[in-house]
Amino acid sequence: MRLAVIAGDGIGPEVVAEGLKVLGAVAPDLETTPYDLGAARWQRTGELLPDSVLEELRGHDAILLGAIGDPGVPPGILERGLLLRLRFELDHHVNLRPARLYDGVRSPLADPGTIDMLCVREGTEGPYVGNGGVLRRDTPHEVATEVSLNTAFGVERVVRYAFERATARPRRHLTLIHKTNVLTHAGSLWSRTVEEVSAEFPEVTVAYQHVDAASMFFITDPGRYDVIVTDNLFGDIVTDVAAAVTGGIGLAASGNLDASGTNPSMFEPVHGSAPDIAGKGIADPTATVLSVGLLLEHLGSADLARKVNAAVAFDLSTRDPQAQVRTAEVGDRLAALAGG
Amino acid sequence: MRLAVIAGDGIGPEVVAEGLKVLGAVAPDLETTPYDLGAARWQRTGELLPDSVLEELRGHDAILLGAIGDPGVPPGILERGLLLRLRFELDHHVNLRPARLYDGVRSPLADPGTIDMLCVREGTEGPYVGNGGVLRRDTPHEVATEVSLNTAFGVERVVRYAFERATARPRRHLTLIHKTNVLTHAGSLWSRTVEEVSAEFPEVTVAYQHVDAASMFFITDPGRYDVIVTDNLFGDIVTDVAAAVTGGIGLAASGNLDASGTNPSMFEPVHGSAPDIAGKGIADPTATVLSVGLLLEHLGSADLARKVNAAVAFDLSTRDPQAQVRTAEVGDRLAALAGG
Ligand SMILES: CC(C)[C@H](C(=O)O)[C@@H](O)C(=O)O
Ligand SMILES: CC(C)[C@H](C(=O)O)[C@@H](O)C(=O)O
Repeated sequence: MRLAVIAGDGIGPEVVAEGLKVLGAVAPDLETTPYDLGAARWQRTGELLPDSVLEELRGHDAILLGAIGDPGVPPGILERGLLLRLRFELDHHVNLRPARLYDGVRSPLADPGTIDMLCVREGTEGPYVGNGGVLRRDTPHEVATEVSLNTAFGVERVVRYAFERATARPRRHLTLIHKTNVLTHAGSLWSRTVEEVSAEFPEVTVAYQHVDAASMFFITDPGRYDVIVTDNLFGDIVTDVAAAVTGGIGLAASGNLDASGTNPSMFEPVHGSAPDIAGKGIADPTATVLSVGLLLEHLGSADLARKVNAAVAFDLSTRDPQAQVRTAEVGDRLAALAGG
Repeated sequence: MRLAVIAGDGIGPEVVAEGLKVLGAVAPDLETTPYDLGAARWQRTGELLPDSVLEELRGHDAILLGAIGDPGVPPGILERGLLLRLRFELDHHVNLRPARLYDGVRSPLADPGTIDMLCVREGTEGPYVGNGGVLRRDTPHEVATEVSLNTAFGVERVVRYAFERATARPRRHLTLIHKTNVLTHAGSLWSRTVEEVSAEFPEVTVAYQHVDAASMFFITDPGRYDVIVTDNLFGDIVTDVAAAVTGGIGLAASGNLDASGTNPSMFEPVHGSAPDIAGKGIADPTATVLSVGLLLEHLGSADLARKVNAAVAFDLSTRDPQAQVRTAEVGDRLAALAGG
């Protein structure tokens, strides 16, 4: 396996080291190439993602990313120029985010019940396309726009992917989340697409919820959800709500998939670079390790993925919830469990 | 006080009846005019909001609205043609949504702490402007767009309103919620505006959070928020999260304000028409009664507003949380408490 590694900023390098530790324990034939991208490189050289680096990345089987971001960089620079550029250039149209409440993990909910959902967030369209502008900046007549672009091609492929995942799960239930009553044009495309594709998956039951209602039900009744499909921006928000109710972004994994397999997919914890705790060795690497599980699954190593996930499940169920996390210790334990 | 009443659909008429009961108990010089608008009228006549009705509404001091919506009406018709048309035509640029956890109310959170926030949601711009379209509908080449429009004029007035509210509260804290790292154009306008206006309110401390992070902190640490200011779409979502953690939309009140006073403001519970329980007399009218409190406050009757809010607070602290709500009984109790 040829893996490109973008450790990134803040706690990124710390959690990625543990992710690689666990990956190495289950998949010894690992060839990793580190890429120095992120805030530090930008501050040093002004470079975000040189075209030559992008081309090199394309030559790998997958990418493991830690975290990108630094308070010293103005908002949008690293996101648009690096993280989102990677997602868009590598056609990561499926942003896959499981949210499962593991045994032993404290949910902020009083009565969380069983939570086991799989959020399929569109990754290359919607309000994330960067299509907007500013007119008469810094005057009383300034106008700023953001355009959400949605295509039949883009919506159909992610909806189809979500149905494929739903049909392979015991509950076979899919919920579309949008805001069709206000964003009527994009909403209509999403609704019609779900309706059309559903004809090919008669065994999957389908529900629809407005994003505001869903954000509430994620809190009051998260157990009702199985697979979710939603657009890029709604997915950004609801997956953080899902992460919150399942114990926080310290545990939230994600895969940015080019489901066609043309480009390498990219796996990253949902959390950011957390500069406040960087360098202290106390960041929880679990989300990165679970992202490694998604990576293995995506590359066809379902057995190894199961080992990694089982190691995490076991470790979480036996962790002392009061104890301070030690990044390297968690990685050691998970590597021993998964590789043993 | 000349009040226009749009009872609307589903449970709308039931909860509005109780809202008026309480209002009548504290403000006897009340002149109400009912307006038949909503799903039933549209289904009967095809009319949503005739221009003549809109003109009549403008002649009132305020509008009380129950709920609009019916599963038999395609998404967007009533929302765009009636509810949002009212908000836009009457320049309801402040969508005011308090979220307070009352004593005696069960939060779905295990450890909610004290929650007392005031969300100031922009009401006339953003992705709600209805500026979008569809190209090549029902073909594989379909493209659907939605445009978020943000103006210095529109952002500045709602930000200023939020600062004014923040400075009048004990904690004097304001949080801007946006997604400046992705929606860089609109985000920049919002950030710069908050920064500029903050110079006039040096006593107010200001924080910024991305909408995804905020949606998480609303769940893990809601006590940190005081006043929130955010755009129309983010406000729609985060106010439902805020409602969820403070006991649900059965208690969530809102005011759609033209803060300039030119047009009548409109007060409505955040919940919808709930067709599944309509006509059963079991809808909770508390959100409508709290909306009546916002109405009184807006019209300068702060004393009467306090009476209504105190009645709700007392009633909630003494309600049996297991008992089935009876719409009219709740209204009777609140009217007696507020008017007594
Ligand atoms: C950092 C940011 C651009 C990103 C996003 O909005 O997608 C993050 O919030 C995420 O969810 O991965
Ligand atoms: C019904 C809908 C148009 C409305 C909105 O999105 O504003 C509702 O969700 C609300 O929050 O009042």
